[in-house]
Amino acid sequence: MWRDLAPLGRHSGSGGYRRYAWTGADADCRAWFRAQALARGLFHESDRNGNQWAWLGDPLAGDAVVTGSHLDSVPDGGAFDGPLGVVSAFAALDELRHRGVAFSRPLGIVNFGDEEGARFGLACVGSRLTAGRLTRAEAHRLTDAGGITLPRAMEAAGYDPEAIGPDPERLARIGAFVELHVEQGRSLDRTGDPVGIASAIWPHGRWRYDFRGEANHAGTTLLADRRDPMLTYAETVLAARREAELAGALATFGKVAVEPNGVNAVPSLVRGWLDARAADGATLDAVTAAVERAARDHAERAGLALDVVRESFTPVVEFEHALRDELTRILGGGGTEGGGRTEAGGVTGTGGRTRDGSRAVPVLATGAGHDAGILSASVPTAMLFVRNPTGVSHSPAEHADEPDRAAGVAALADVLEGLACR
Amino acid sequence: MWRDLAPLGRHSGSGGYRRYAWTGADADCRAWFRAQALARGLFHESDRNGNQWAWLGDPLAGDAVVTGSHLDSVPDGGAFDGPLGVVSAFAALDELRHRGVAFSRPLGIVNFGDEEGARFGLACVGSRLTAGRLTRAEAHRLTDAGGITLPRAMEAAGYDPEAIGPDPERLARIGAFVELHVEQGRSLDRTGDPVGIASAIWPHGRWRYDFRGEANHAGTTLLADRRDPMLTYAETVLAARREAELAGALATFGKVAVEPNGVNAVPSLVRGWLDARAADGATLDAVTAAVERAARDHAERAGLALDVVRESFTPVVEFEHALRDELTRILGGGGTEGGGRTEAGGVTGTGGRTRDGSRAVPVLATGAGHDAGILSASVPTAMLFVRNPTGVSHSPAEHADEPDRAAGVAALADVLEGLACR
Repeated sequence: MWRDLAPLGRHSGSGGYRRYAWTGADADCRAWFRAQALARGLFHESDRNGNQWAWLGDPLAGDAVVTGSHLDSVPDGGAFDGPLGVVSAFAALDELRHRGVAFSRPLGIVNFGDEEGARFGLACVGSRLTAGRLTRAEAHRLTDAGGITLPRAMEAAGYDPEAIGPDPERLARIGAFVELHVEQGRSLDRTGDPVGIASAIWPHGRWRYDFRGEANHAGTTLLADRRDPMLTYAETVLAARREAELAGALATFGKVAVEPNGVNAVPSLVRGWLDARAADGATLDAVTAAVERAARDHAERAGLALDVVRESFTPVVEFEHALRDELTRILGGGGTEGGGRTEAGGVTGTGGRTRDGSRAVPVLATGAGHDAGILSASVPTAMLFVRNPTGVSHSPAEHADEPDRAAGVAALADVLEGLACR
Repeated sequence: MWRDLAPLGRHSGSGGYRRYAWTGADADCRAWFRAQALARGLFHESDRNGNQWAWLGDPLAGDAVVTGSHLDSVPDGGAFDGPLGVVSAFAALDELRHRGVAFSRPLGIVNFGDEEGARFGLACVGSRLTAGRLTRAEAHRLTDAGGITLPRAMEAAGYDPEAIGPDPERLARIGAFVELHVEQGRSLDRTGDPVGIASAIWPHGRWRYDFRGEANHAGTTLLADRRDPMLTYAETVLAARREAELAGALATFGKVAVEPNGVNAVPSLVRGWLDARAADGATLDAVTAAVERAARDHAERAGLALDVVRESFTPVVEFEHALRDELTRILGGGGTEGGGRTEAGGVTGTGGRTRDGSRAVPVLATGAGHDAGILSASVPTAMLFVRNPTGVSHSPAEHADEPDRAAGVAALADVLEGLACR
């Protein structure tokens, strides 16, 4: 499967993937998915929100077990973020057929549309629409960098943009959703485990910081006469790192815009975006409040105006405990904490041994959003992570070794057998 | 004169000026200059490098006294940077005629072309070409943001781009050049003087800092696993400020470019530009070396690669001592230091009194480049500064009060009378 999928949407210059929603590369990936479904004798359908499904058994029977992920990518993304979950789904089905098991529930494999949001700026569009977390009107307003709207792009790809919207009937027929995903950090690499179980998706948000000073000539304005927002921005970048470190959270200034952005000009405006995430809402609130306090202190001393705007916020997603516990039981995991807070950095319940002496599967939280996070509000949902030895994500350096990918397939097959073959 | 000049090239939105070389606004300013020359019965000419001249007396006689500045602007610049020197030149001539003096040397008023370099990225193009500091081939390669080359722009404005190049004969006929300019800092405002005399233009340069780390997902990469160049950039911004403060120099990071510049992405590259200036070359070297050392220390600890490239450098311009001393004598200045080093911040020889008890005219250095700096290698050159109460430069907030502008005209008239009417 990897051999056929690998060249699709790959950029020869960067070596990374550019599989953006409703482009030619996306269509190629969809054709690959359909071919995989048909080759296995599965029923293939595209739903009205641009998600693809492959079914074993009657999709309308209800209480289905669904697995899968997405095939689209960030700009110059890696090979595994998304595709690993789809390829492993087909491979796990092959493994279960090889085992000769009998299915007691319908099994679905899904490719969610536009998960990364690389083109239209909003992540998880396919699952959001289905779950009613994005309205048709909102979706119709999404526009790419070239001015093409989402409905125009869907139409060009042969889909009906008027048909998009909530699909509660479809969700009601799903009894469990399990998404396998390459880990986007190095927690499993640290603990030496090929596979882990997700406990939660951290609450996260983005805040825009506008530091306003006074534009001036860099060659003639005395330091004492300046109100230079770049200095306060720099102090705030360092404060964010310190506060995140102290709290075991994540805080990043990865985007900045400067006016006038001239070499010989003291800036009038430095606009920086803070991305912050933590294991629980209280910690996140404490970190973001501390960063804003530090920024305001520095801005006041420097005579700057500061506006802080929260541009987005997603509360914690705690995966359903019953399903999670079933996964840990199936995979011989070390059990999970029942509470809301998961250790920062991510791994809980690792290092233990199960009753039969085999190594326990670790349970870890993630800071990244997923379709599984969207679905978890409507459907019992769980996630499996596969070790990423580089810890790198959204880059061609993202990786999963072949033995770990095989361990991921085996774990997913065990989970599907445990859930769908009772 | 101000009433006619003020509306030309003024942007109604920003209130600032957009008088870029070889545009319609530039042509309007040139027409204004020509009209001022003709209204005074002066001989008007445009030289082959796009500089405008107005002559009283025979321009070919030699040993001319020339004054003037430029009429073009930075993007959304102020009303005075450049035009104050041209308007004051015409006004000083009016004043001398009112005084009824007799001229013993030719008097020229000049409007240098493309001083700010706002369109083609290189400052002082007109004076550089004339002085042989920019070759025709180099000038022909200059291109604006829209892809229009300097020769095409000159041609469109009715000039012959093949004729540009060194003009040593013209320079040889100039015995002294005096440029009056609005001060671009607050030194005169601090000392309470309407007018000052320039001692030197500080050596200055720009350095590009490329901090290279590793692109990563801001939501999943543990702080300990990151190689985040934004942090090292921030440390370097603050180090530059500290080192400049310690040395009494100027250091500014006013321009930055980030890759991939995504809110949820740890950057792979942060590129910052350092603008640094000091009273002498040794101080500048010490400051820039200290900033680079700090950046390298931080980069090494953070596991980043750092490239530092000096993109441009201009050594100190020390204005001719004989002419400068003559100006201080004429204006009753407090005398100047003979040496190369001028106090950081700028003002030397202020606060004293002349023998007749009047207040001494201060002598100050500047960090900004000027056509006078280019000409000073070929022609005895001096500068006068007029107080700018805001200290702001390259912005509509730049200012000169009417009484100070009158004091500037009176000082320039005194200087021209002293030099050209003996």
